[in-house]
Amino acid sequence: MSELFRQHIEKIVPLTDQEFALVSSFFVKKKLKKHQFLVQAGELAPYDFWVEKGLLRAYLLEENGKEQILQFAMEDWWITDYQAHFSAQPATLNVDCLEDCQVLCISQEDKDRLCAQLQKFEHFFRKKSNAGYVALQKRILSLLTDQAHERYQQFLSLYPSIIQRVPKKYIASYLGVSRETLSRLSG
Amino acid sequence: MSELFRQHIEKIVPLTDQEFALVSSFFVKKKLKKHQFLVQAGELAPYDFWVEKGLLRAYLLEENGKEQILQFAMEDWWITDYQAHFSAQPATLNVDCLEDCQVLCISQEDKDRLCAQLQKFEHFFRKKSNAGYVALQKRILSLLTDQAHERYQQFLSLYPSIIQRVPKKYIASYLGVSRETLSRLSG
Repeated sequence: MSELFRQHIEKIVPLTDQEFALVSSFFVKKKLKKHQFLVQAGELAPYDFWVEKGLLRAYLLEENGKEQILQFAMEDWWITDYQAHFSAQPATLNVDCLEDCQVLCISQEDKDRLCAQLQKFEHFFRKKSNAGYVALQKRILSLLTDQAHERYQQFLSLYPSIIQRVPKKYIASYLGVSRETLSRLSG
Repeated sequence: MSELFRQHIEKIVPLTDQEFALVSSFFVKKKLKKHQFLVQAGELAPYDFWVEKGLLRAYLLEENGKEQILQFAMEDWWITDYQAHFSAQPATLNVDCLEDCQVLCISQEDKDRLCAQLQKFEHFFRKKSNAGYVALQKRILSLLTDQAHERYQQFLSLYPSIIQRVPKKYIASYLGVSRETLSRLSG
């Protein structure tokens, strides 16, 4: 399995070669084409995906046909419909590829099994989840307090490379601003 | 330590008496008066708090003097400034008591120590963090897609008892709506 993945884990917890071999045995590599779906609303979302290459988005398709983007994920990030994934309930989100992608997949069952076998991995996922929680709290505060131009500036400084890789309308959706506002801000 | 706390943990992971005694030895009970602070912006936030009794809020004091509420916590919930807590950096939020409170405190260092000693507790915190992550994702989607009246209705159905216990202006702040709008919705 990829050396990048080992580095990703070892940012939080060091692994022996044997431990990394164990971890790797729980993941499956998948190649996907642009526009392909990893999760579809209404279906189960048993897998969590670590992105080795490419760019994806998780979004809600509203009844009025509008796509509301909840999350992007590029190299070194994780993505799925987490509510569906953790609860084994049907997904409400869609996850699809905005570029050709290469991901590593692990099922929720295997994640629990691996965590039980190797506490280091339970530790890894606890720390990742904590970091994710804090990032979402920041985003909520930003949605509640910041003006559109501040949200756009923050996005620019946090994720400069995403701006280059996705259509502006997707960034507008993620930020909760109109396309016209975003055009004005980024023009 | 309180039987309620044991029940709280055992919703996720069963403990032997000996394990619960170990867990309890890492927590300190604190009683607080209404208006007392548990976390103050600018200071460190080494402790995480489980609420045994009472109601608290975490909020950002904006430069213009406005208080933006990020989180409430009542019986059986956890609260602190998590960004500050996890990173050992100064807090940006304040956490204070909206009622007289009784909480159990654990420092971040002790949490890590306890998790290392007892994997069940690492598992417990991983599952709690996952659930918290999903709840925040839902809130973000609600902020991005729902109208004020939908957000208020959701809050009502999720947290009926908070509505009875806190001033309306705090709920307006949490929901990101004006007090006037909330008065109209709840009138």
